[in-house]
Amino acid sequence: MNILEDINHLLPVAGINIATAAANICYSDRTDLALIELAPNSTTSAVFTQNAFCAAPVLVAKQHLKKTAPRYLLINAGNANAGTGQGGIDAAMACCESIASVMGCDANQVLPFSTGVIGENLPVDKIKKVIPDLKIDLNPHHWMAAANAIMTTDTVPKGVSCQVSIGNQVVTITGIAKGVGMIRPDMATMLAYITTDAKVEQALLDTCLEKSVGQSFNRITVDGDTSTNDACVLVATGQSKVAISELNLIEFQQALDKVFETLAKALVRDGEGATKLITINVTEAQNAKESDRVAYTIAHSPLVKTAFFANDPNWGRILAAVGRAGVKDLDINKLKIFLGDVCIVENGGRSASYTEALGQKVMNESEITIDIQLNRGQASSQIWTCDFSYDYVKINAEYRS
Amino acid sequence: MNILEDINHLLPVAGINIATAAANICYSDRTDLALIELAPNSTTSAVFTQNAFCAAPVLVAKQHLKKTAPRYLLINAGNANAGTGQGGIDAAMACCESIASVMGCDANQVLPFSTGVIGENLPVDKIKKVIPDLKIDLNPHHWMAAANAIMTTDTVPKGVSCQVSIGNQVVTITGIAKGVGMIRPDMATMLAYITTDAKVEQALLDTCLEKSVGQSFNRITVDGDTSTNDACVLVATGQSKVAISELNLIEFQQALDKVFETLAKALVRDGEGATKLITINVTEAQNAKESDRVAYTIAHSPLVKTAFFANDPNWGRILAAVGRAGVKDLDINKLKIFLGDVCIVENGGRSASYTEALGQKVMNESEITIDIQLNRGQASSQIWTCDFSYDYVKINAEYRS
Repeated sequence: MNILEDINHLLPVAGINIATAAANICYSDRTDLALIELAPNSTTSAVFTQNAFCAAPVLVAKQHLKKTAPRYLLINAGNANAGTGQGGIDAAMACCESIASVMGCDANQVLPFSTGVIGENLPVDKIKKVIPDLKIDLNPHHWMAAANAIMTTDTVPKGVSCQVSIGNQVVTITGIAKGVGMIRPDMATMLAYITTDAKVEQALLDTCLEKSVGQSFNRITVDGDTSTNDACVLVATGQSKVAISELNLIEFQQALDKVFETLAKALVRDGEGATKLITINVTEAQNAKESDRVAYTIAHSPLVKTAFFANDPNWGRILAAVGRAGVKDLDINKLKIFLGDVCIVENGGRSASYTEALGQKVMNESEITIDIQLNRGQASSQIWTCDFSYDYVKINAEYRS
Repeated sequence: MNILEDINHLLPVAGINIATAAANICYSDRTDLALIELAPNSTTSAVFTQNAFCAAPVLVAKQHLKKTAPRYLLINAGNANAGTGQGGIDAAMACCESIASVMGCDANQVLPFSTGVIGENLPVDKIKKVIPDLKIDLNPHHWMAAANAIMTTDTVPKGVSCQVSIGNQVVTITGIAKGVGMIRPDMATMLAYITTDAKVEQALLDTCLEKSVGQSFNRITVDGDTSTNDACVLVATGQSKVAISELNLIEFQQALDKVFETLAKALVRDGEGATKLITINVTEAQNAKESDRVAYTIAHSPLVKTAFFANDPNWGRILAAVGRAGVKDLDINKLKIFLGDVCIVENGGRSASYTEALGQKVMNESEITIDIQLNRGQASSQIWTCDFSYDYVKINAEYRS
């Protein structure tokens, strides 16, 4: 398996063309619209936000997916088209119809996606105006341009390619993602588009997506806020010579998992104001609900997150977060907590071997792992999060100004 | 009922003496130790943190309360004596024994309380050294001094007095509290001491405390982090001529509720970095669990809290928080959301009557109410929280430096 994280050299995927344009939706001087064209006979799976206030494009995309296989994914940045009622649905539909008319397909074959400010009306006319430009721009090599066009408060575009040999044939997977705030995906993340030239039947593709998302985008959190617009799309064009079946599924799934995990971690690493990537491993829990609960309680603690920002080995805050996670009959004398390789808590308090210097050394790193060994079962959870800095407040206090 | 919020003029309570001292535990140039002396025959109720990693003084105080009625409450700031294992318990016991020896009581009659940094050993000798000074300083008028001595990152001391006529006799209630970070009390708050000269039997006092705490300290959150040291103590000295029974309970409980609510709101108003007091009312829920869940999801959303800090009527973030609160089968078309008196969301999106100017007018206030009408039942929740500012990050990034 060969993973390429260089955003400047993402690999084309046979059957996929990409275009971008500047529709001036909210930003000036940049692209804010991307179109992904899928070859006929591609299979497509998608998962969406569980937020009850899901955005208009999410509702429309779900409907269209039920009816037919998509040919186009249209993504705009700068406006979420969420909290916009029936008018928002009409606006999303109008964009699909405009793509259908210019590209020569059915409106049901277009999936719309939006990201940006909630509650503003989508400027449909601005989008329609540049759709002919999108048609001209379609090209297999425009992955980086698309990764840039879909950004909002992201500071860097995010993409990854992977090539894996399956039965002496090469399968290519390339994906892009955006989203650095309002990130605690629930069944999906902000926006992510992953494509492959493998041939994968619909039911199997659905299973592959569910598995990869469960171990990547559903395992990250920046601020605990689940977006109204989360969507993750996986496309298999089938234009390589490799058909995925139970026989070669493991190799394909491993490559897919790696692509998803790389993108998910890239979102956290670029989390709003983030200066550190924090991996939280909770092991030896009675069940997955319990290990999840401990992991997310630590990940969402503003006190833990500000301590990481300050490079402060204030391990008492981690201990306090574990203690309030609601684990029934937790025996604090049996559990252990590690910061990197350093044991910080055992026997109900600070480890006898712990020194401030050891803790400080770990805290100075930019990527840090916390291990919680609960010593009460076999279940475990791994999640990724980031620290909490002045810039998080700055970015979100000034977002609309 | 007469409520006095002027910290400079808190009312003495017959049967209560107070002293403070500077033990140099963590701070210089300030008092950091308080002693509250309770007259013989006082009844005392207390509730403590539900954090599994509860601090050594919490463990000792619980044990002592089981054995006998307390005569002294000893409180130190600057060191939480939490995460300190058996050594921490020994240190708390040593402080109790020192008080017992100087004051002439049993060590079981002393309840210890600590607040400050987690994981440092309590400097017992520094505390012991000033206990004779505490004895000399005991006085009914030292409430403000005690409110000052127990502060950590608090910027102002917090106290309230209340006088209420019950059967032509006056009952006095005076209480103090501290705590502005690691605040999401669970059965109790950081530290709060409320005393009255009414005579209240133990079982009834327990009920009164539980009811008042349930409507005050258990209804506030600054950052969602439940402390290891939360404690709330209610003392009835019985030295007025009023005995509380079922006959006059309502008047007493109302006065008590008002004192607790005033102190709880004072904690939130002084929440770390807080610039606003936000009241969240969730009504028409199917049950209290559901209304609580919606209220706390909004209260803990960093995006909602930073928008309030910025005076930004970014109502989409409130909508997104309601949507992700996990209310089963929530019909977004039926609920309404109000910011102050202004309807911001109805019919599944922005209210037709909403304008940015109306929203901005509310956001410019320093005390703001959010009302969520779920339109699916009779249950409701009211909680108080604050906004999220640069100073929250600053205070918590620099806490130990």
